[in-house]
Amino acid sequence: MPEEKNKIGFIGAGKLAGRLMTAFSHAGFKIKQVISRGGDNGRELARLYRSSYSNRLSELNPDIDFLVIAVPDSVIHDVVDKMPGIEGVTVHTSGAVSIDVFKGLARRYGVFYPLQTFSDSREVDFSNIPVFIEASDEKSLSLIRDISGEISKKIYEINSERRALLHLSAVFANNFTNHLLAVSSDIVKQTGLQKEVLYELVKETINKSFEMEPADSQTGPAIRGDDLTIKKHLNLLSFSDELSQLYICLTRSIQNYHSKIKADN
Amino acid sequence: MPEEKNKIGFIGAGKLAGRLMTAFSHAGFKIKQVISRGGDNGRELARLYRSSYSNRLSELNPDIDFLVIAVPDSVIHDVVDKMPGIEGVTVHTSGAVSIDVFKGLARRYGVFYPLQTFSDSREVDFSNIPVFIEASDEKSLSLIRDISGEISKKIYEINSERRALLHLSAVFANNFTNHLLAVSSDIVKQTGLQKEVLYELVKETINKSFEMEPADSQTGPAIRGDDLTIKKHLNLLSFSDELSQLYICLTRSIQNYHSKIKADN
Repeated sequence: MPEEKNKIGFIGAGKLAGRLMTAFSHAGFKIKQVISRGGDNGRELARLYRSSYSNRLSELNPDIDFLVIAVPDSVIHDVVDKMPGIEGVTVHTSGAVSIDVFKGLARRYGVFYPLQTFSDSREVDFSNIPVFIEASDEKSLSLIRDISGEISKKIYEINSERRALLHLSAVFANNFTNHLLAVSSDIVKQTGLQKEVLYELVKETINKSFEMEPADSQTGPAIRGDDLTIKKHLNLLSFSDELSQLYICLTRSIQNYHSKIKADN
Repeated sequence: MPEEKNKIGFIGAGKLAGRLMTAFSHAGFKIKQVISRGGDNGRELARLYRSSYSNRLSELNPDIDFLVIAVPDSVIHDVVDKMPGIEGVTVHTSGAVSIDVFKGLARRYGVFYPLQTFSDSREVDFSNIPVFIEASDEKSLSLIRDISGEISKKIYEINSERRALLHLSAVFANNFTNHLLAVSSDIVKQTGLQKEVLYELVKETINKSFEMEPADSQTGPAIRGDDLTIKKHLNLLSFSDELSQLYICLTRSIQNYHSKIKADN
């Protein structure tokens, strides 16, 4: 008889929950229950994955082996506090919230943090997404590791302190980078060109930064101390105090960062 | 008899010059001469491409059809001022310097600006790199377009004002983004992990930003107004005033940018 797969439940029905249901379902797991306050999204996901649906935490199915809480960080504590206890392992999916949010409120628990940005409209290949895990005890860790290992090839065990730093680094690598790309796309549009003209440059920037140390390949007027070009750029940005400030702040940061490296050597 | 290809000359022997020589040489052009003050680099490139070498502008070969000035922005004017006149077309390769740098100093001239970041150690496929061109006159423009078209599929004619804006957008997309990747790589290392764990996230950030509007897919604590997480992050960054300032500045910029979008709608 083939081993029966663990039954998975979800609290939350947002982008991450949807992507995880796809990945777990492809890996052969049964999505047993979806609980969400929102209504439509949760009902639709439950229909899609032939799972039961409820909008009440009190109706949590006690048979669930692995319960994934995929709700906004600020709500996690409240959810954990209000949900009934289960025999299975409960995990949250946040980079920034400590595992201690479960303390005294759940018996077996942990963290399952996939380091990726999720959208409704974009498929992602989960097998390459690194997942950072942590658990209340060895047995729970082993379950989390086994289940995670069925959807991703890259499982790392790290504690909450290291995960918080990792999450911070992701804010720089994803949120802040995305903002710079939004700004540069706006500026390109002022030239009448499409932002696609930047694609090869950005792709090469990224590839380079992972093949060598990005600090070693820093170029541009800031690190050159090319005040003339910096002045020209600030002139071009004079239509927006906001963007001028951003330009100055990044230019200063590059200069301070690299003068510090020099001073340290 | 096959049409003879234009003879190309270079002033400058840095990364861009080297990459361009490779591309032109692959396309069947003859690299006629390399002039550089530096010495070793120029001599080595001249040897590699069987071209003549000189370290004196006065020895510029008058037979050159297409002369590429690939020197730092701050030196372009000086080079143009000091070099002897030629019958061919002289171009500079800078995003930030106006075509007017040639005015009164050359007869046929223009700009050949490839939008890419070049390294000595990394091969690039030039055919996908967009090249932005401009010229003193129609005949020169046509020559520049024809020659550029043999190494790249993406040739755009834009004037110096638009090119300056494009160059500014590239500073955001490349220089500033690279700095954020350097910072995020530093922070990851503090966790004991390798920066490679960020690769899938960064790749998806970039791909997403070119498939949709990056402003529409902004996520993270800044745009959520998640002050608790922002506070946690600033605590984690308390070891560095520099990085704290950078974090605050980018967070504010995201918040102002998006409140402006809201106000405009």
